[in-house]
Amino acid sequence: MPGEPRPTPYLRLDVTKASAAIEGMAAHARSRGLALRPHAKTHKSARLGRMQLEAGAVGLTVATVGEAEVFADGGCDDLFIAYPLWVDPAKARRLAALQDRARVAVGVDSTAGIAAMAAHGIRPDVLVEVDSGHHRTGVPPAAAGALARYAAKAGFAVRGVFTFPGHSYSTQTRASAADDEAAALAVAAQSLAALGIPCQVRSGGSTPSAAFAAVSVGGVGRVGDGIGGLTELRPGVYVFGDAQQVELGVCALEDVALTVVATVVSHAGGRVILDAGSKALGADRAPWATGFGRVQEAPDARIVALSEHHATVEWGSGPLPALGSRVLVVPNHVCTTVNLADEYVLADGTGTWPVDARGRNW
Amino acid sequence: MPGEPRPTPYLRLDVTKASAAIEGMAAHARSRGLALRPHAKTHKSARLGRMQLEAGAVGLTVATVGEAEVFADGGCDDLFIAYPLWVDPAKARRLAALQDRARVAVGVDSTAGIAAMAAHGIRPDVLVEVDSGHHRTGVPPAAAGALARYAAKAGFAVRGVFTFPGHSYSTQTRASAADDEAAALAVAAQSLAALGIPCQVRSGGSTPSAAFAAVSVGGVGRVGDGIGGLTELRPGVYVFGDAQQVELGVCALEDVALTVVATVVSHAGGRVILDAGSKALGADRAPWATGFGRVQEAPDARIVALSEHHATVEWGSGPLPALGSRVLVVPNHVCTTVNLADEYVLADGTGTWPVDARGRNW
Repeated sequence: MPGEPRPTPYLRLDVTKASAAIEGMAAHARSRGLALRPHAKTHKSARLGRMQLEAGAVGLTVATVGEAEVFADGGCDDLFIAYPLWVDPAKARRLAALQDRARVAVGVDSTAGIAAMAAHGIRPDVLVEVDSGHHRTGVPPAAAGALARYAAKAGFAVRGVFTFPGHSYSTQTRASAADDEAAALAVAAQSLAALGIPCQVRSGGSTPSAAFAAVSVGGVGRVGDGIGGLTELRPGVYVFGDAQQVELGVCALEDVALTVVATVVSHAGGRVILDAGSKALGADRAPWATGFGRVQEAPDARIVALSEHHATVEWGSGPLPALGSRVLVVPNHVCTTVNLADEYVLADGTGTWPVDARGRNW
Repeated sequence: MPGEPRPTPYLRLDVTKASAAIEGMAAHARSRGLALRPHAKTHKSARLGRMQLEAGAVGLTVATVGEAEVFADGGCDDLFIAYPLWVDPAKARRLAALQDRARVAVGVDSTAGIAAMAAHGIRPDVLVEVDSGHHRTGVPPAAAGALARYAAKAGFAVRGVFTFPGHSYSTQTRASAADDEAAALAVAAQSLAALGIPCQVRSGGSTPSAAFAAVSVGGVGRVGDGIGGLTELRPGVYVFGDAQQVELGVCALEDVALTVVATVVSHAGGRVILDAGSKALGADRAPWATGFGRVQEAPDARIVALSEHHATVEWGSGPLPALGSRVLVVPNHVCTTVNLADEYVLADGTGTWPVDARGRNW
């Protein structure tokens, strides 16, 4: 009935806080002379993507063709799929349809991946992925030139190089990962230049490393000269923040824009049991995390155990919140949290926004 | 186009294997004289729920009112919400509507939770939850009688007691957790009997402990006498199996019925990178797990790292699968995996089944 509280758990979005984060990162990128291409996998919301573009982003980053389709439908006309796609005939058709609506680039890290696209008659712009220390996908930086030459000979426009400095997700490595990132992109760009291939874009950036993003390396690089550090940032999580970012020192607990509203259902064992578990929060827990999530209004509280529909909270200081009361949980990793829900409930009571790209993994 | 492979990642369901698991657990329960009430949170599928009922289950277990609504819609008329619900006016109305369609019981572990239901005029049957060693929700076993008496005085029909022996999820504790479970249920039932309250149901059971479920304790208990071990089993995961169950010794890798089909997208660093990450597999990783998931056709392979759209696999023995080839990933914890997808793709090519209760957390 009207006026009744929504059933928990649900996503609560404070648009004022998200807007401040969007403006803050845009200002940071401008101050460094960096293009900003936020990773939209975090929010999966066409509306939030438009807010990022209106704040000055040059386009959006996505992880899958399915996400790209959603954001193209939502009005974004410049999309980078930062992933070494394996393209079969069906995916080639989908990419071709996307190219009718938007400027599209994709990541590459193998000759076979490039050859598969060419074999199916699709040639989006490409950026060569390099490994800057996260050791996931990407070629060694010095090998970027050879792969770029392969792509160019196969008829692809090579836009540049990119990396994800995922090893910035540690309490001691935010700055050093940013250094690794800039150095890797510089080496990669030089390896393209050595083969006569222009490197227009040197794209990097995660939320933890963004503050340290280097536009030059050892004084020799400079934006636009093709051999320096970054020209573009691709952070994602910053739009909301989460417990990981709080514990990495990137943002304050009270500034986190996206929380999960949960109800206290039990005081068993003198602890607080909430009705938001791994099916609402996600189960990510980095080795350095202090728990499975935080409570926004109780900085001392820690989620010490998580099952599918239970968060077990050691409350720390102060009296336990009453049975039936509601608390705001700050999830560890907000990207996986958002993907579990169908909609955002706006904190100001004005309605809901859909999680447009929920589940678009393919 | 017809005949083209589906885009990955997606859920692949081998109905033959699931049927064998459903029949196997039903036979096990029958052989022990136990009622079987499978936990449907694992599959969230009305169709699979009906298969369990047709195999002899007395009803289904669910975790939320939202799941109960889906399974009532799907034709199940006997539902146990094994959770200490906090009932507000909206949830009371939903429970009342459910009771028009099905026999409904809910878990209780506090006087406040019982009082909230009574205050809103809803009195489903209740089972008192007891803590048998998992230390999540539930009262101490000896305290069950007092809570049952409170419920009875408030006008509720007390059906019995239940527990979840979640500490069975460890390589060394499957049998001892089952012993704890039976002992806790016996103590709880005795505490009801001491107050003159019949204890018709003593419900327990997880997939790892089910093989050890005890129907008597120390020789004094026996099914139906009100003071023994279990009368009812509530396993969930057994319907599919998963990597956790394989590594706990509950099932064989080749018998797992639910896999995630993933494509090899990169060989960076000499490892296999798959396009199924935490947004397709879930991020659960128990301390004793050997990785973030397994590969069904490659027993030596281990997922050593997981991001949202990447699984990093150390392949172990044999040549790496080619770029673009597909592999079947056995997720660590299948309940969270299924909740990430909208549908099951049947392995025999005959179509898809919906994940009816996906996201029904409330």
